[in-house]
Amino acid sequence: MSKRKIFRELTDVEEARRIFENHADTNVLDSETINLNEALNRVLARDVFSTIDVPSFDRSIMDGFAVHSSDIENAEEDKPIELKVIGEAKAGYLFEGYYEPSSCVEISTGAPIPIGFDSVIMVEHTLRKGDTASIFRSTAPGEDIMSAGADIQEGERIFPALTLLTSRELSVLAALGNPNVEVIKKPKVAIFSSGDEIIELGEKLLPGKIYDINATSISVNTLENGGLPVYLGIIKDNHDDIKSKLLKTLNKYDLVIISGGTSAGIGDLLYSIIDELGKPGMLVHGIKVKPGKPTILAVCDNTPIIGLPGNPSSALSILNLFVIPFIRKKAGVPPLSNNALIPAKVKQRLRSVSGRHEFKPMNLIKSNEGWLSFPVPGGSGAITSIALADGFVEIPEEYSFIPADSDIEILLFSQNIVPTDLQIIGSHCIAMAKIQALMTKYHPEIRSRSIVVGSTGGVASIRRGEAHIAGVHLLDEETGKYNTWIKDKMDIEIIPGYFRMQGLVVAKGNPKNIHTMQDLSRDDVRFLNRNPGSGTRILFDSLLQKDNINPSTINGYQDYARSHTTVAAAVRSGKVDVGVAIEIVTADDLDFIPLKEEEYDIIVSKSYRNLPAIKKFVKILKSEEFKLLIDELKGYRLK
Amino acid sequence: MSKRKIFRELTDVEEARRIFENHADTNVLDSETINLNEALNRVLARDVFSTIDVPSFDRSIMDGFAVHSSDIENAEEDKPIELKVIGEAKAGYLFEGYYEPSSCVEISTGAPIPIGFDSVIMVEHTLRKGDTASIFRSTAPGEDIMSAGADIQEGERIFPALTLLTSRELSVLAALGNPNVEVIKKPKVAIFSSGDEIIELGEKLLPGKIYDINATSISVNTLENGGLPVYLGIIKDNHDDIKSKLLKTLNKYDLVIISGGTSAGIGDLLYSIIDELGKPGMLVHGIKVKPGKPTILAVCDNTPIIGLPGNPSSALSILNLFVIPFIRKKAGVPPLSNNALIPAKVKQRLRSVSGRHEFKPMNLIKSNEGWLSFPVPGGSGAITSIALADGFVEIPEEYSFIPADSDIEILLFSQNIVPTDLQIIGSHCIAMAKIQALMTKYHPEIRSRSIVVGSTGGVASIRRGEAHIAGVHLLDEETGKYNTWIKDKMDIEIIPGYFRMQGLVVAKGNPKNIHTMQDLSRDDVRFLNRNPGSGTRILFDSLLQKDNINPSTINGYQDYARSHTTVAAAVRSGKVDVGVAIEIVTADDLDFIPLKEEEYDIIVSKSYRNLPAIKKFVKILKSEEFKLLIDELKGYRLK
Repeated sequence: MSKRKIFRELTDVEEARRIFENHADTNVLDSETINLNEALNRVLARDVFSTIDVPSFDRSIMDGFAVHSSDIENAEEDKPIELKVIGEAKAGYLFEGYYEPSSCVEISTGAPIPIGFDSVIMVEHTLRKGDTASIFRSTAPGEDIMSAGADIQEGERIFPALTLLTSRELSVLAALGNPNVEVIKKPKVAIFSSGDEIIELGEKLLPGKIYDINATSISVNTLENGGLPVYLGIIKDNHDDIKSKLLKTLNKYDLVIISGGTSAGIGDLLYSIIDELGKPGMLVHGIKVKPGKPTILAVCDNTPIIGLPGNPSSALSILNLFVIPFIRKKAGVPPLSNNALIPAKVKQRLRSVSGRHEFKPMNLIKSNEGWLSFPVPGGSGAITSIALADGFVEIPEEYSFIPADSDIEILLFSQNIVPTDLQIIGSHCIAMAKIQALMTKYHPEIRSRSIVVGSTGGVASIRRGEAHIAGVHLLDEETGKYNTWIKDKMDIEIIPGYFRMQGLVVAKGNPKNIHTMQDLSRDDVRFLNRNPGSGTRILFDSLLQKDNINPSTINGYQDYARSHTTVAAAVRSGKVDVGVAIEIVTADDLDFIPLKEEEYDIIVSKSYRNLPAIKKFVKILKSEEFKLLIDELKGYRLK
Repeated sequence: MSKRKIFRELTDVEEARRIFENHADTNVLDSETINLNEALNRVLARDVFSTIDVPSFDRSIMDGFAVHSSDIENAEEDKPIELKVIGEAKAGYLFEGYYEPSSCVEISTGAPIPIGFDSVIMVEHTLRKGDTASIFRSTAPGEDIMSAGADIQEGERIFPALTLLTSRELSVLAALGNPNVEVIKKPKVAIFSSGDEIIELGEKLLPGKIYDINATSISVNTLENGGLPVYLGIIKDNHDDIKSKLLKTLNKYDLVIISGGTSAGIGDLLYSIIDELGKPGMLVHGIKVKPGKPTILAVCDNTPIIGLPGNPSSALSILNLFVIPFIRKKAGVPPLSNNALIPAKVKQRLRSVSGRHEFKPMNLIKSNEGWLSFPVPGGSGAITSIALADGFVEIPEEYSFIPADSDIEILLFSQNIVPTDLQIIGSHCIAMAKIQALMTKYHPEIRSRSIVVGSTGGVASIRRGEAHIAGVHLLDEETGKYNTWIKDKMDIEIIPGYFRMQGLVVAKGNPKNIHTMQDLSRDDVRFLNRNPGSGTRILFDSLLQKDNINPSTINGYQDYARSHTTVAAAVRSGKVDVGVAIEIVTADDLDFIPLKEEEYDIIVSKSYRNLPAIKKFVKILKSEEFKLLIDELKGYRLK
């Protein structure tokens, strides 16, 4: 075991950040000059002053006539004053003539005011006949004229340095006439992956290998936070190779990231190599954070190097705690928390490991009292826990829990994430996906998320307040009734759904000749079950009991898929001979042995019932359009 | 006047939208396949299903030993069980051997579980000696093993169609191993400008011309909302030229935008040309919206054409009401309101023109009760009104006002805009800019905005609640005291500031020999004043009065700059001979005749005093670092 590194002295997060920032240069980078059209989301390198007046001349802001107010001071609706029209002033051209008493010039919006005139009268208050214009109203000096510099004056400071350039700022900069703008350079981030199990996307997935998630994750997080990612490939477990590759990045990148291999093998190599690369070398090895402990922070020859854990969730934790703040500082981009910090309430007690700063992936859902936040299921290895999380809460090292009903702050993973208006957790159903598609069509502004955990999990999520809506098909064996029993236990409303045909899914032509439940116990038959807690599994178990079949006689009873679609895919690929699922997933290329028709209903927590998103969902569920759609789905029937 | 178009029959906004969407295809575009690393902020074209299990094999989630739980069921801390180590399983490789009773395999995190073993014991609970490992704890079957498909199952739906791809989604997609993703194409938007007064950025600014703000504004707004802008230049006022250019865009672009010239001249040409281009042609010409009335909505030969007003604020209104929602629909991007709708309170009554849907630029500032919103000063022609606005409120046609203290919603111009934590409105001062720079340095998370309107305007903004803080230097002529009198009139706190030297700014070497206030009345002297309401102008007027000088004798008394810097720039450029300003703006290249030292203080509304941003500002104002800085500024002196 001697070559294994066990982290005994961990550094806490704040201390690690302090040490790192003491050695890594966190000042914003130099500037570069680019075209305005390419400057979206870049950051101004210095104060911008106007070199011109805007407008640069006195201009008319109306269509009408340039006049001198003294000529028409007595003009009234019933006593117009006639002026001689001496010409026309058009936008873009200087008028050639001059003012003479009792004259006027026809003028367009945007045209320069001809010399000697002091105001503009709107065309609505005039009547032109040949070379004469009757004026029906007086004007004040300066009326309907925008004077030179009225908008922006030469020498005026328009934006301070470090202003983030959105469409708003770029439009204003365009008014100054300079097609270019001086912005902070994007920090260049070198990205290496390591680990013998890692393969690049698109390669063939050989046994024991996994795709390199971190390279993509680090690249797109770098992009999203104002950096420029440069992927440099997978490094192998070899001292000289690692050293020569790292040496080439020094002073060429603003940050070097190596993911994977920080806990063993390459980790130990890195440990020794980093101190050979340049001073000060290794700064922190192992951080009191969960997940993300096996992290390396180093600076070699002015180049910061961060070693991220290989586990995607752990890498994400360190990305958010160290990498993203560093990239944003170098890029001059304001901290992510400016755009992406969401106040929320947490309903349940959040446990945390005392002595480790915890980075807990959380999701957010809308409630009547604002955003509620829930921890996301899944261990630190699960990439799906990232998919379901909107952001994270940090629980400092000295806390062992956050009490229920606390107000917390969730930092979104990206400022482009929109928390969920409508969270549906429960049983997997194709018709539910159809409702969601109708929601997207009619209410694109409502962000919904569907999490498939089975009917039992759906009921539990409704109880916790984590789901607004759950689709369920739960048979009460005593009464033989579906779903209605839930109402006796919780404050919910049941919205009637539809009937679905459940049965056995087999390959086209039913090559194994499976016809009854008894056939599932045959030695030559490989079965695929559904997950514990799913309505389908509960139904299947009740059918087994009815037929007195011992589950242990079924080859594959313990294996399960989490959705009907996955069952169909397993039969289709030949992985299994038969699975239990709803009829619709058989499409045209699988056969189906019906077992039982069941009732699928939608349950809604009463406390969420008046949220706009929930009202809209129920309206679509009850709509004629959806009913017609149900009628056409194979194995479905209206209630 | 015959060729002028006066809009008599305007269409209201909702009706215009309905007509336009009835004729323009608003379905999302086709798909294209791109690399994950380029897919940030793109939108999934179809549901994504996994074609693999993740992980694709049973893997260890710990460093330790693969064991069979039955071999060690009686292991305890003081009664270890010895197992024979038959080899080592490394991440990335399949272990060659098989389980034999009382054996174990050393295993790394991520390595496949060797055949026949059912659990992993953490290295912390083991002790290896040569070929033997002592095990100090029992395991449950499956312990510390992540089974194949536990995270993602083959056939599982990962994301539905139309999912926006942030770093979160792209990281999950990477786990599936496909380097590519099928996304909705970006809508191609052709952009023309028109108007004889318009010149391109970078061209020489000739008299009567203005820079083309709209081309940049439309381009970057298109980019920001998921479209692909293609700028096609400025079109001239010529029937055949316009027609042939527009014909070339039909069926090649998803949207064609022409800005400018919709009210006259080119507007009339467009009107006739559009109906020649294809069916159905012109749909709406003139909309009941303010600003933005002279707008054209058309569809020719399946290609939507929108004519925007030339005025930048009017163009912005139509961009937000029609263009941006259309681009987002075609791109499949959720409506902007998902990310950028901010609930706010408006303190003052907002007037609106009845019979016109009003699009009112507003800014947002933080208060104890959430966001407050204020209308932005400036007419519809002012580009600065865009610079100061964060977004807009829509006031429907049937309302003539919104009452004071209403709850409204502000749609940000861009989801990247962060509303203001700290709004400073008042007198222009270089030292105030230094405090802001210190704020950015120490508190980058606080977004501040400084609006220069003079001391009087600053006091008024504090009264309205529009400013958190104002810098003022207001002399009370009766008492001769600065600023303290404001306290008698309003509930404010005065934070003592510093002294500044005011005086006359002249060119280096003082070529016009200006030494006294009397010299300003000389015929050969051109003066530049400060804006009405500025503390500097109030001081200047009191000095004139003291010296019995009639303002009308001063050449240029009516002309004014809105900042000290602008005064210095005007003297520097030779536009004027002398101006009134603080000493610091003279730098090394201007001369200065001191007039009077004044007191500059900071006033804070008591109702905002406990906001974190305000506390931090005051702390910096009182800091030693700032005091040292003041000491070094020319013409400044500590209080």
